[in-house]
Amino acid sequence: MRLLPEEALHDLAIGAAILGTGGGGNPYVGRLLAQQAIRRHGPVEVVAVDEVPDNALAAFLAMMGAPTVMIEKIPRGDELEQAFHMLQDRLGRPISHVLPAEIGGINSMLPIAAAASLRLPLVDGDGMGRAFPEIQMCTPTVFGISATPMALADDKGNTAVIETVENNWTERLARSITVDFGCTALIALYSMSGPQVRTSLIPGTLTLAEELGRIARQRDGIEGVLERLRGFRLFEGKVADVERRTLGGFARGQARIEGLDADVGSTLTLRFQNEHLIAVRDDTVVATVPDLIIVLDADTGEPITTEELRYGFRVAVIAAPCDERWRTGAGLELVGPRYFGYDVEYVPIEERADASRTVA
Amino acid sequence: MRLLPEEALHDLAIGAAILGTGGGGNPYVGRLLAQQAIRRHGPVEVVAVDEVPDNALAAFLAMMGAPTVMIEKIPRGDELEQAFHMLQDRLGRPISHVLPAEIGGINSMLPIAAAASLRLPLVDGDGMGRAFPEIQMCTPTVFGISATPMALADDKGNTAVIETVENNWTERLARSITVDFGCTALIALYSMSGPQVRTSLIPGTLTLAEELGRIARQRDGIEGVLERLRGFRLFEGKVADVERRTLGGFARGQARIEGLDADVGSTLTLRFQNEHLIAVRDDTVVATVPDLIIVLDADTGEPITTEELRYGFRVAVIAAPCDERWRTGAGLELVGPRYFGYDVEYVPIEERADASRTVA
Repeated sequence: MRLLPEEALHDLAIGAAILGTGGGGNPYVGRLLAQQAIRRHGPVEVVAVDEVPDNALAAFLAMMGAPTVMIEKIPRGDELEQAFHMLQDRLGRPISHVLPAEIGGINSMLPIAAAASLRLPLVDGDGMGRAFPEIQMCTPTVFGISATPMALADDKGNTAVIETVENNWTERLARSITVDFGCTALIALYSMSGPQVRTSLIPGTLTLAEELGRIARQRDGIEGVLERLRGFRLFEGKVADVERRTLGGFARGQARIEGLDADVGSTLTLRFQNEHLIAVRDDTVVATVPDLIIVLDADTGEPITTEELRYGFRVAVIAAPCDERWRTGAGLELVGPRYFGYDVEYVPIEERADASRTVA
Repeated sequence: MRLLPEEALHDLAIGAAILGTGGGGNPYVGRLLAQQAIRRHGPVEVVAVDEVPDNALAAFLAMMGAPTVMIEKIPRGDELEQAFHMLQDRLGRPISHVLPAEIGGINSMLPIAAAASLRLPLVDGDGMGRAFPEIQMCTPTVFGISATPMALADDKGNTAVIETVENNWTERLARSITVDFGCTALIALYSMSGPQVRTSLIPGTLTLAEELGRIARQRDGIEGVLERLRGFRLFEGKVADVERRTLGGFARGQARIEGLDADVGSTLTLRFQNEHLIAVRDDTVVATVPDLIIVLDADTGEPITTEELRYGFRVAVIAAPCDERWRTGAGLELVGPRYFGYDVEYVPIEERADASRTVA
């Protein structure tokens, strides 16, 4: 157990934006909510995945929706607690631990705010080790844990509690409700026991995000991030073009980056659905989900989300291996390139990088 | 109090199809479910609106969705009870009375089936005095009663309980969920007290439907129905053309009828959204919602739903005055022609009929 003080939030927000792989919403908005909650209620107690007792009842607390809308529409503040209480009422017993659903973006911060105001311990781990756009895309699904009962609340006072036969159905139904709510909803879901937390969650990712944020802010931050994540440099260049539309509650689009320095004469295309899904250099796929594709400001090393990408930005694109849980058959079925509609075999980034070095 | 035996269902189904004004789904499907439930559990106790005690907790039990889909997709049987129990759990105390939401179509029958298997009294009245396509379109809304908490269940085992700030929001959210459920959902909603039942419901409509069914089956049934409903003959002709599409969970479209006998040389156009909304003879509006526009088989007097309308059918189109509750400002705001997108003033059918007689 350790305490997470307000001062940790700055690094954590930067690290979460790096692990967010372009999506998950801008963590700075969530950071303000977390800051406010810690100031009011004191620092948050963080427990390791292994410290969660057998009789625990833990649940993901998160925000759902298109990050493009999340920037404009800040939660009122108590919707997440409302979702929490609705889920707890449905379960009929107290929820003892708050779980981050994803370590990327705003959803790394909202559970901190909720844990502070609910005075509950926060688990150091998450269900993605990054960010993903759909509800069923988390490691508990790989381990057969049901996403429902799930509670949803909006900023106007509308709520829903749903129960579905499969986690794909949860996504479908919750997505429609979220669109009706005005493209964002605050949600509580994936309730689980201590043993389920210990098996299915990716451990230590809160601490990892904090570390990454600290590293990124140092001189030569990009090198430090690459080292910490055992990642690879994919490309350096200038953003030439960004297409983006909010469709069915998602921010979808692509960015075209023209090479500079060592990459001059080449083009890198990034396609995203909230998060970066695939990176294509000229005609060659150089990285795909579930590996992490990360866009950093080439000068400052600061992460840039898909909705912040603009013409003229000078960026470094890097890729890093995802958690091993995603590299199983069940994992790739949920979040591999084919699920997202790309007719591309998943090849771990380490192998792709090796291959490209061989060619060069 | 009286008992509703299985034998009453035949007349009731015909009467409900008449009052359904083309929508509400085919009551014959619901009749089979009601029959089965009464055979298993005994006749249903029917109580008048005035007999509902102050401390009652009553709720609408109904099916939501496009009638075009309802014909093909018969409820599994226990989804409505599931919705009932979910609403009851949310309310935290036992529901004592079953209320029909609409007297038109399948929703006149499903509450009978539910009352039989739940062994609860059924109230002789409903929230429309006819059928309407949207959830907020019922007299309890006119009296400020909230539609939520509302429970929804599908045939696969998916469920939702929603709570909304306004009944228009209930419609929006429940409609999306229903579309996701495959265009039909079994629902429990509009929980209310005894005094609320007595003020807001349209009384005696179950008995009215039974009477209408008996009348319609007699020789000269159309004349009998006209007399019982204080209605007016609008047109007699042959269906020349039906356009129909299922859109956003509704069956929308229009039917063109070419005149025969006294109406030869004229055309009547009916526009519908589940129910008939407006009747236009050549270029003149001859009837609009909330008055009842009813299509009957010209030979047998049997009612024909919008989804059964076919080229070549010989039909009589009649109109009848709606309940007075719909003719208030609040009522017309909810279900007047303008709400449905027609730039037409509501004129009670009695006045329209008088005017046309004056012209003739």
